[in-house]
Amino acid sequence: MPLTGARKWLNEVIFGTDTPAGKYFDVVLISTILLSVGLVLLASVESWWVRYGDIFFALEWFFTALFTVEYLARIYCARDRRSYVFSFYGVVDFLAILPSYLALIFTGATYLMVIRLLRVLRIFRVLKLVRYLSDANLLVRSLWQARRRILVFYSSVLVICIIFGSIMFIVEGPKHGFTSIPTSIYWTIVTITTVGFGDITPHTPLGQAIASMTMLIGYSIIAVPTGIVTAELAHELGREKQLARCHNCGRAGHDANAEYCKHCGYKLEDFEPVTEE
Amino acid sequence: MPLTGARKWLNEVIFGTDTPAGKYFDVVLISTILLSVGLVLLASVESWWVRYGDIFFALEWFFTALFTVEYLARIYCARDRRSYVFSFYGVVDFLAILPSYLALIFTGATYLMVIRLLRVLRIFRVLKLVRYLSDANLLVRSLWQARRRILVFYSSVLVICIIFGSIMFIVEGPKHGFTSIPTSIYWTIVTITTVGFGDITPHTPLGQAIASMTMLIGYSIIAVPTGIVTAELAHELGREKQLARCHNCGRAGHDANAEYCKHCGYKLEDFEPVTEE
Amino acid sequence: MPLTGARKWLNEVIFGTDTPAGKYFDVVLISTILLSVGLVLLASVESWWVRYGDIFFALEWFFTALFTVEYLARIYCARDRRSYVFSFYGVVDFLAILPSYLALIFTGATYLMVIRLLRVLRIFRVLKLVRYLSDANLLVRSLWQARRRILVFYSSVLVICIIFGSIMFIVEGPKHGFTSIPTSIYWTIVTITTVGFGDITPHTPLGQAIASMTMLIGYSIIAVPTGIVTAELAHELGREKQLARCHNCGRAGHDANAEYCKHCGYKLEDFEPVTEE
Amino acid sequence: MPLTGARKWLNEVIFGTDTPAGKYFDVVLISTILLSVGLVLLASVESWWVRYGDIFFALEWFFTALFTVEYLARIYCARDRRSYVFSFYGVVDFLAILPSYLALIFTGATYLMVIRLLRVLRIFRVLKLVRYLSDANLLVRSLWQARRRILVFYSSVLVICIIFGSIMFIVEGPKHGFTSIPTSIYWTIVTITTVGFGDITPHTPLGQAIASMTMLIGYSIIAVPTGIVTAELAHELGREKQLARCHNCGRAGHDANAEYCKHCGYKLEDFEPVTEE
Repeated sequence: MPLTGARKWLNEVIFGTDTPAGKYFDVVLISTILLSVGLVLLASVESWWVRYGDIFFALEWFFTALFTVEYLARIYCARDRRSYVFSFYGVVDFLAILPSYLALIFTGATYLMVIRLLRVLRIFRVLKLVRYLSDANLLVRSLWQARRRILVFYSSVLVICIIFGSIMFIVEGPKHGFTSIPTSIYWTIVTITTVGFGDITPHTPLGQAIASMTMLIGYSIIAVPTGIVTAELAHELGREKQLARCHNCGRAGHDANAEYCKHCGYKLEDFEPVTEE
Repeated sequence: MPLTGARKWLNEVIFGTDTPAGKYFDVVLISTILLSVGLVLLASVESWWVRYGDIFFALEWFFTALFTVEYLARIYCARDRRSYVFSFYGVVDFLAILPSYLALIFTGATYLMVIRLLRVLRIFRVLKLVRYLSDANLLVRSLWQARRRILVFYSSVLVICIIFGSIMFIVEGPKHGFTSIPTSIYWTIVTITTVGFGDITPHTPLGQAIASMTMLIGYSIIAVPTGIVTAELAHELGREKQLARCHNCGRAGHDANAEYCKHCGYKLEDFEPVTEE
Repeated sequence: MPLTGARKWLNEVIFGTDTPAGKYFDVVLISTILLSVGLVLLASVESWWVRYGDIFFALEWFFTALFTVEYLARIYCARDRRSYVFSFYGVVDFLAILPSYLALIFTGATYLMVIRLLRVLRIFRVLKLVRYLSDANLLVRSLWQARRRILVFYSSVLVICIIFGSIMFIVEGPKHGFTSIPTSIYWTIVTITTVGFGDITPHTPLGQAIASMTMLIGYSIIAVPTGIVTAELAHELGREKQLARCHNCGRAGHDANAEYCKHCGYKLEDFEPVTEE
Repeated sequence: MPLTGARKWLNEVIFGTDTPAGKYFDVVLISTILLSVGLVLLASVESWWVRYGDIFFALEWFFTALFTVEYLARIYCARDRRSYVFSFYGVVDFLAILPSYLALIFTGATYLMVIRLLRVLRIFRVLKLVRYLSDANLLVRSLWQARRRILVFYSSVLVICIIFGSIMFIVEGPKHGFTSIPTSIYWTIVTITTVGFGDITPHTPLGQAIASMTMLIGYSIIAVPTGIVTAELAHELGREKQLARCHNCGRAGHDANAEYCKHCGYKLEDFEPVTEE
């Protein structure tokens, strides 16, 4: 059953991106989301909360009201209400307004602290932004194609971290900061990913030798995910161009390194990426 | 001589992965291994050991008994007992149950501490997990193909680390933490792999200048293993697809970037990887 | 209107790089720029400023006078004065001499400190150096081709950092150094880029577990920009060689992996890169 | 003039690697070099020097004598003495024995310390090892092909470091550890290469924001050398195989992804790399 009247118009504005009104709505919505997220970030600064607590509180409810209206409007004008509510973005839209209302129920002495923590969950609003970036598909598809290899890779890294963590626990022991095997594994992950906080460091010569080995292994291992992703990405990049259509003549099937349409000679630089289902 | 009766059935369950019973056994075994490894990790936390030492001790022996029975069953039903016992996994299976029994012999005052250290060796059980991941072959083959280049690369890195470590020892000296050349080499490895713990840092302007050079070299060097692995991985990826068989018509010989079988047009997405001997 | 007389000669010397005089001028100019930048760097060292302040001050004005004369000469002999003044390098040339003159107007008690800060802006002179490196085009073109993908990548990284930063703020809290969400986001960026200063570190087991996850995600994510740039660079590298002309016969259209000209057999090693508009 | 008698035999043993004696000599020499380098490393440890100083001193002179004999023998049996002495390895061989003799001349109170510092130069003996690894050629050739791009890349990184270093000096200032612009540049290099010692860290919100930007730029920049090296290495890898000869029929010209000789079907796995001059 096609939508009619106000519901159809609202659907075009809120869900659509083709009409000027729909585009304008999206820009305003993204700006509002960014502002509300910025508000949560600033409200977490102790000194600002003490001084501008009332303003933060008022703005908090202003944004909550705004997003509630938006959520209800989305449900009202959705083509299939049930599937919207249980879709990924339907759940995210709901989670974005939930915390403020939850703070009303759990009132009491610790009210302010609780609302501050719950408010943080509103960050999930940021996830909405992803919807507006269509070029992310290529990256996501590359990562998805490589999912099995990435899983194997992470399993190997974890096994290496557990073994090296245990060895370091025996060698260095609690008196040098390696208080338990889980802590040693944390140290190994910090080291093998080349983060290197320096909160825990080996002090015995043997520990430093094993740490050096861990680092050199990590150095080599860092190449593996890069290799996996690069190989998949190069493959997807070539395929995207092959499937793309020329802006001038509309025909596809170009080579991966083609610069001009082989049918009409039109420059292919800003060709339309093909969306797949 | 083919196996018969109970031995044949046990062999299918323990070593095989084709029958439902064999699959079920593998899932239970992996879960048990993960649980026993988790136990070792938690038992190393001082405060937990003090409180739940008895439970850890009991569970420790429960898992040891379980893995002992499994090890004996594997020997009993193996097609070639000798080759199983001396195979990689045969040795790992043996090492996984050894520490607990060793702790019985070396009793005395330091009993508890010793058993804790020996217990850590049980981590090798985790290595069993690798057996269940068949996709690791591609990664291992890529690394194996590149073994000579990786060796040359590591030799060069070590030579650079020894030279820079010696220079830093002369420039900074023991009073800034560079107590000996081995320690300076440890610092150079920490720096060139971009880990950067910060437990030892240069304080003189000249030392900071040489450190900057070390980092920029490390920055460039990090590209080399990535390049090696990526080049090999891209090669292996293409070859794997070339050797793969179509699910529909069973014919192989597809191009590296093929999406559909060129013989029957069937989608190739989840093709079977070819295992090589 | 073509330039004549002294103006034409000056134009060839200052803007041109084909005549011996033009090449000599460029070498002298680059050396002067490097010297003046080095002067700003050294003058910022407290102890040197106290001792050699007068010399720094004199050299400062010497370089300012030199670059002022150069700037006026550039305007005088430019083919199109207006377009030079508002071009990127015209603005940079102007910004390079501005700070010293501004220091004359804002005299007073804080004179010395102000001039020191303004002087730092002179660093932009270094940007002039880029003009002399023509090979940078390939790198810049590769990055430009990948601009949309890089933007998507950075957006995703920022979203991940905001979410993980918020979670760490709740888990670790102000008493472990995570004083506010912005600070936690700073920590997450430090961690996910594998920098790992160690000024803020997680102390609770849960915080360390989440930190480990952050690092492993960062480890995988580091592969994405590498994959993007490598794919684009390999594409541009092949295309550059295809467009390049043989030194011997002047013909183009060679394969990406060609070592010798396919028309005359001349070695292609140091072929001229093609500049595109 | 061809060599004869003892000189010819010595030349084959010392410079050659084809005869059993030549191979045996190389293995012994490499082992001796590694031992003498290990000696220098251990002698730098304060406590070991105090206890075993005499043994270190004796071994030091034993190795010096050995290498002196070797150096003289090399000069005696070289095909072209002049070109050997001034070749890279001729100079390295000379530098490896020089420090011990220099220590004889500069005797006195600081004798022990001086000899220890000079001894460090003996590390250059390690460089000899490179000669024995022929597979390094591919890596070196790849890096050489990319030399111009790597130079452009390093120039850009240095310009970015100088600009960000100056900005951080203004923003954070001496009271937060950014004592001068050179120190700030050192911090920027530590940060942009993702080393992150943590000896200097930003404390103001603005400084942390700029530091975050620096890290994210460094994160992206790390992709560029990887892309350059990978592209060159993939190219060289393909070319090496193309130039390689089959072990069975001796014919070359195979495809980059060939696994078997296209002339006789022999497996190509361990083909001989072609050495180029």
